[in-house]
Amino acid sequence: MSPPPSPSPSSSSPARGVAAEGAVESVVVVHNVAKRHNVGTLARSAAAFGVSEVVVVGRRDFNSFGSHGSTAHLRFRHLSSLPLARRYLKEERDYDICGVEIVDGAMPVTDHPFRKSTAFLLGNEGTGLSERECEICDFFVYIPQYGGGTASLNVTVAASIVLHHFGVWAGFPERVREGNKFVVAEKPSKQARRNYCAESIEAIVEERKHRKENARVDIFEENGSNESQVTSTLEAMFVG
Amino acid sequence: MSPPPSPSPSSSSPARGVAAEGAVESVVVVHNVAKRHNVGTLARSAAAFGVSEVVVVGRRDFNSFGSHGSTAHLRFRHLSSLPLARRYLKEERDYDICGVEIVDGAMPVTDHPFRKSTAFLLGNEGTGLSERECEICDFFVYIPQYGGGTASLNVTVAASIVLHHFGVWAGFPERVREGNKFVVAEKPSKQARRNYCAESIEAIVEERKHRKENARVDIFEENGSNESQVTSTLEAMFVG
Repeated sequence: MSPPPSPSPSSSSPARGVAAEGAVESVVVVHNVAKRHNVGTLARSAAAFGVSEVVVVGRRDFNSFGSHGSTAHLRFRHLSSLPLARRYLKEERDYDICGVEIVDGAMPVTDHPFRKSTAFLLGNEGTGLSERECEICDFFVYIPQYGGGTASLNVTVAASIVLHHFGVWAGFPERVREGNKFVVAEKPSKQARRNYCAESIEAIVEERKHRKENARVDIFEENGSNESQVTSTLEAMFVG
Repeated sequence: MSPPPSPSPSSSSPARGVAAEGAVESVVVVHNVAKRHNVGTLARSAAAFGVSEVVVVGRRDFNSFGSHGSTAHLRFRHLSSLPLARRYLKEERDYDICGVEIVDGAMPVTDHPFRKSTAFLLGNEGTGLSERECEICDFFVYIPQYGGGTASLNVTVAASIVLHHFGVWAGFPERVREGNKFVVAEKPSKQARRNYCAESIEAIVEERKHRKENARVDIFEENGSNESQVTSTLEAMFVG
């Protein structure tokens, strides 16, 4: 092996750690995910990049294949509609909502156009963010591409790159490593997980009320209200 | 929608474009990929991030599911063993070989520790880079993680993040966009693709000679020599 090249931070290193440690959080928002198996790999990346919460909007009948157990370490929250999600993210959390999509005015993620805790809304594989999804966003980022061989990236790959950049910008502390792996935290016990992830009674009442008011607005959101479609993995998370 | 925040390049933007346009190339090297369907999504990211060539070492019986047609735009090359791959990459191409793996001395990819055209060697899902794979590398990069929920990233996600950073460092020109997609180049015609991707007669003769000399060294490499296992998509690429 020849010696590794010396990095030259003055010319090529991204600046990092703009936000004070612990001061900001990232959240992932998925709405009616088309390819359900994508959520598992997405959860794995979310866990790797310090995401605080995964907000599932609309249908929640995905499985966690590909997560390699990382869903147990993530906090999940289910909300039945986009307006409810926005209300939660803006009013309860004071987050920016950032759409990951190539639209007019979208900024390259490499510019790190962040300013505080941010919720990232991901488009569906294939169709990207819909008009209604775009409406709840405060701003947009996209990932520059250099080759002409594909119109877009896999949605989980795109999300992972964005979450990675947010972590760099936020200055999240790097996880301890052991050998050639990052050290995995102890799994929260089932009981603790339940308490931690359960939605409050008030939230559930509010959500049901809202769902009733908006009945039949969106076929997928109606699907999302079918409790039987919740997978076993997530059942423990959503049942208080 | 509230107005997007202004990016502040002085404090948070990564520097980019260190290498002169067109001066450097990136190459992906896959060796005995365990989960064959990963290659399709990997090819899509490789196409998006301007990768010049995908070098398949050892077995080549993967499929291109998930590539969304991008394999047609990529140049594939098959080599039967790691030493042959190193000889090709170092002697014929004068590339650095960078292992994507958490090892002692590995540098964070966010530091952009690159200096010229680079071939990225990816580990197998699960086991990472083997000792023999590490031996052909000049240096290593890893992707910092911030959460305790997973020991590592999905291999395609990791590769995508590394290829993305290399493109930023190299200053590859950004692909033209139209609407909310990057413009896909015209598919090369089958005949043109064949000519472009075929290995030279000399390379094939040399490879067969080497394979004979190293017979039975590696059961997987032996598998790789079974022509019948080449999938239809790649057949056109590998048959001269």
